[in-house]
Amino acid sequence: MKNKLTIIKVGGRVLNDKNIFEKFLFNFSKINGKKILVHGGGIIASNYLIRLGILPKLIKGRRITDEKTLDITIMTYAGLINKTIVSNLQKNNCNSIGLSGVDCNLIKAKKREINDIDYGLVGDIEKININFINTLLSNNITPVICSLSHDGKGQILNTNADSIASHLSVEMSNYYNVSLKYCFDRAGVLSDQKKSSSLIKNINLSGYKGLIKEKIITDGMIPKLDNCFYALRNGVNSISIGDYNVITNKKNYTKITLD
Amino acid sequence: MKNKLTIIKVGGRVLNDKNIFEKFLFNFSKINGKKILVHGGGIIASNYLIRLGILPKLIKGRRITDEKTLDITIMTYAGLINKTIVSNLQKNNCNSIGLSGVDCNLIKAKKREINDIDYGLVGDIEKININFINTLLSNNITPVICSLSHDGKGQILNTNADSIASHLSVEMSNYYNVSLKYCFDRAGVLSDQKKSSSLIKNINLSGYKGLIKEKIITDGMIPKLDNCFYALRNGVNSISIGDYNVITNKKNYTKITLD
Repeated sequence: MKNKLTIIKVGGRVLNDKNIFEKFLFNFSKINGKKILVHGGGIIASNYLIRLGILPKLIKGRRITDEKTLDITIMTYAGLINKTIVSNLQKNNCNSIGLSGVDCNLIKAKKREINDIDYGLVGDIEKININFINTLLSNNITPVICSLSHDGKGQILNTNADSIASHLSVEMSNYYNVSLKYCFDRAGVLSDQKKSSSLIKNINLSGYKGLIKEKIITDGMIPKLDNCFYALRNGVNSISIGDYNVITNKKNYTKITLD
Repeated sequence: MKNKLTIIKVGGRVLNDKNIFEKFLFNFSKINGKKILVHGGGIIASNYLIRLGILPKLIKGRRITDEKTLDITIMTYAGLINKTIVSNLQKNNCNSIGLSGVDCNLIKAKKREINDIDYGLVGDIEKININFINTLLSNNITPVICSLSHDGKGQILNTNADSIASHLSVEMSNYYNVSLKYCFDRAGVLSDQKKSSSLIKNINLSGYKGLIKEKIITDGMIPKLDNCFYALRNGVNSISIGDYNVITNKKNYTKITLD
């Protein structure tokens, strides 16, 4: 019987609202057993880009990362957000360490090839240093991982946090019974983006295909759910999507299953 | 007989000039035996502060850190500079990890009390988590530490990198034969700031007192040298101050000794 490991990916406006952010981190600290936090920080990065006179560019919810944008991404993800999270977790007696994919070769990636869209300095995950993660977890240290990787040749690469969470969950499922939770600013997957009461509580693979066909699931939600099904097909035990209460909430969230 | 440990503190314009920075990191990667890098990044932080319309405030070479300044400090020190260093070291096959004082409770500090000057969100070092450093070193992982600490109650604090380097060196001298090198944008301690030919090759404690009296050593150089003598009195084996060649250079630098 494998031990339990909870992997939470947090993003969206949860990181922007100080109150919600602190409640989320408090809930996270109280999770029993081993845990890992993966975060992005796109909105905060965009705000700094605008303040510095750089126009944020996104296509289909994915950022186009030129050199200047990458610098701000590194500053906000690996700097401000990552260290704010870790200092809050330390306050809550959750001994944690902030990491990017560069540290200890945690996430090796390949710069995305240019097809129809040039995403710029964006990396697709090749290898995660699971040994290092296992060493930290066995020393009761909680990894807090921001969404940056590197190519091993000195280039840092912006990498989708949802993809990091799902790839990491798949790798860790060799050692643990992994529960993956995506936490953002909505109650879960909604059939009407304006109504939180339109929460879809269960989505399985065939239902997902129908929801895409009916254009109920669109845009950025598609790669997020693709990541979920990829993870479930490759050994991850359970996946849920919800707001900052997804950790403790027993009722209101979206549960993703294969069947 | 203790093993050798080299601790390098890098700062000043070494971090700003891409060519010099890469040469420095190449030299650092080639150091035989265990090593630790400590860095600041004040000039880069100041540049971003100015770009964001925030006026950098310094008194006697030490930064006054309000909340907005702290955010930029965290972004540049723990984000941009720290991860750029680590990604360059990985390229040079030096397996490293970027850390702030928040990570794994590495540096616990106390917010400086307000006497004649209110330094703001600045921390004076109370405790360094040496066990964690020793674990990393014994796994052949090189720590790259930026100059931030925390109070354990959720507050990140700006902390002088020279002080971190000297305190860390003192603590590590219980386990290793520690050589501490301060690397900045001058050849060492100069008697005439405009002439690198005025390098003072050796300074001992009594000579130091004389140089202060004669006002040859002034301003920011005084706390730097105070840190050196503190370290030497408390077990550190050797200290030198020089430019980016201080790692490999056998001739041109300032050697600090007690006698």
